[in-house]
Amino acid sequence: MILQRTQEIEAGYVVGADIGGTSLRIALASMDGKVLGMWKVSTAGIRDPNVVVGLVQQGTDELFREKQLPRNLLRAVAAGAPGVTNVEDGVVIATSYLMGWRNVPLRALLEAKLGVPAAVENDVNTAAIAESQIGAGKGVRDFVFIAIGTGIGAGVILNSRLFHGMGWSAGEIGYLLVPGTSVKPVETGEPGALEDLIGGEGIKGQWLRLWREDATPLPRDLMATQIFDYALEGDALAQKVLRQSAEILAYAIYDLAVVLNCPLFVLGGSVGMHPALWKETQEILQQRDKRVQPRLVRSVLGGDAQVNGAVCLALEAASSRVVTA
Amino acid sequence: MILQRTQEIEAGYVVGADIGGTSLRIALASMDGKVLGMWKVSTAGIRDPNVVVGLVQQGTDELFREKQLPRNLLRAVAAGAPGVTNVEDGVVIATSYLMGWRNVPLRALLEAKLGVPAAVENDVNTAAIAESQIGAGKGVRDFVFIAIGTGIGAGVILNSRLFHGMGWSAGEIGYLLVPGTSVKPVETGEPGALEDLIGGEGIKGQWLRLWREDATPLPRDLMATQIFDYALEGDALAQKVLRQSAEILAYAIYDLAVVLNCPLFVLGGSVGMHPALWKETQEILQQRDKRVQPRLVRSVLGGDAQVNGAVCLALEAASSRVVTA
Repeated sequence: MILQRTQEIEAGYVVGADIGGTSLRIALASMDGKVLGMWKVSTAGIRDPNVVVGLVQQGTDELFREKQLPRNLLRAVAAGAPGVTNVEDGVVIATSYLMGWRNVPLRALLEAKLGVPAAVENDVNTAAIAESQIGAGKGVRDFVFIAIGTGIGAGVILNSRLFHGMGWSAGEIGYLLVPGTSVKPVETGEPGALEDLIGGEGIKGQWLRLWREDATPLPRDLMATQIFDYALEGDALAQKVLRQSAEILAYAIYDLAVVLNCPLFVLGGSVGMHPALWKETQEILQQRDKRVQPRLVRSVLGGDAQVNGAVCLALEAASSRVVTA
Repeated sequence: MILQRTQEIEAGYVVGADIGGTSLRIALASMDGKVLGMWKVSTAGIRDPNVVVGLVQQGTDELFREKQLPRNLLRAVAAGAPGVTNVEDGVVIATSYLMGWRNVPLRALLEAKLGVPAAVENDVNTAAIAESQIGAGKGVRDFVFIAIGTGIGAGVILNSRLFHGMGWSAGEIGYLLVPGTSVKPVETGEPGALEDLIGGEGIKGQWLRLWREDATPLPRDLMATQIFDYALEGDALAQKVLRQSAEILAYAIYDLAVVLNCPLFVLGGSVGMHPALWKETQEILQQRDKRVQPRLVRSVLGGDAQVNGAVCLALEAASSRVVTA
């Protein structure tokens, strides 16, 4: 009887979703974690949680149809959302300016719509889970995953588990104060001091503040990754922004390494993955004291980290439901 | 049979020791944690671990004699030492300039000398354990105990347990970089950037750098707590040092609260307990963003925190030995 149930479960499938401000990505995976298919849709202008959950259902159905699998073999679903998330209650407490969600019962919405157990988590945390289970942090007990995209955030893995903090916002490092950041109190809705300098938008801001027509042949309007590309090509002003950004990032990483005494940091997100930022930051860290010398690596999962982490969570949700059944 | 053993254990006693650079304090406690007596001796000039352990034995014997208790009812001993301590192996990896210990097998030395199970821990961590179990952090799942004496250090309690980090040095916040600290790499043996400004010696250093005969009627040679006393009495220069120190401390606490998302910080140590520092730091934190607003309290155990925490650890060592017996 138990064996039969196990086989049934093994024959099942899970879905992981990465809910973003601009797109929704869904992965269909088998019970051994193998991703069988991916589905993507734009979420530009879409804010209503019910519509987002409807899109998760639509993508799930399309993936099952595409792979010619019976839809009733879906065992669980998990979603990463860009906001502070109460994992225990399954509620997205607050998202940033991107979505504007407040206390959205995302887990209940997913369970009602898809008819299977669901789990929810902050999106940077889902990426950290993926790095921990199948990525650059695999086998490392304590490490920090730092995502730099539009903003900056971190997922803190302690004792091989995500550390959430009592208000579900551990690792919100965008607010860190390090040498070089502003110490001005942050108003609600404003980016934190660290994010204001080295989130993707913050790096753009550095460029805008330094840019003068006679200082560089480059245009005024550049994205953070473009600035770093031009730094590699030798533009002095771009190199200055790269150097400043790497210094601030190195101070933040150093502080996290001091507090948590963890040996590894994994850089993710489109800006965080940039080889120039990684190399410069690593060099600055290596020039600091020998006592605090964490290893700095780039994500091996890249843009797939979030959706892969959601798959990991869905697999957990599927198996924990078996236990409680 | 099991009952009989339990009664025997309940009739026993434990000893907690606080090993410091200037003194050794020992507490004798019953199995319900009640401290029955204290013993203290100077350790000035004493560095040999065997001599220190000999003093622990001497104090233990004297306390048993004084309380007219049979010495064979000693069940366990625990000691807090001023250095990075591998709790699993029972080894003090390195102490600061105070003791100069390197890889001292303190637990084995204690067990050999006293003939009972022993436990060892960093001294700031023992204080944090005491605050967690019987002090200002009682019942709080995640909090940070910050000790400011000669230097500065922290004990990090997560999920109601001490968090050690992979190199046993989590919470060594003396190295933190915050706005206002130096970013110069720290040479071995030098105090970290934060400690250099707001450890007890660092605060003295601030005073020395600002002091001029025409700026204050106060003497050049003052201790940190005296400077804060004079700040309360209205000396402008002392108030400046207090303000600077409280700002730097507030930034460090803010950063810890951001990373760990913990709601409580407990200040301990002779300098950290000073009401002027506590009040000023709390005010600066309250003027910062509402999003990160940890509660800041002073230790209720004060100078007894370390030795009380050692008693807590000794009680654990006594009961865990029963489990393994």
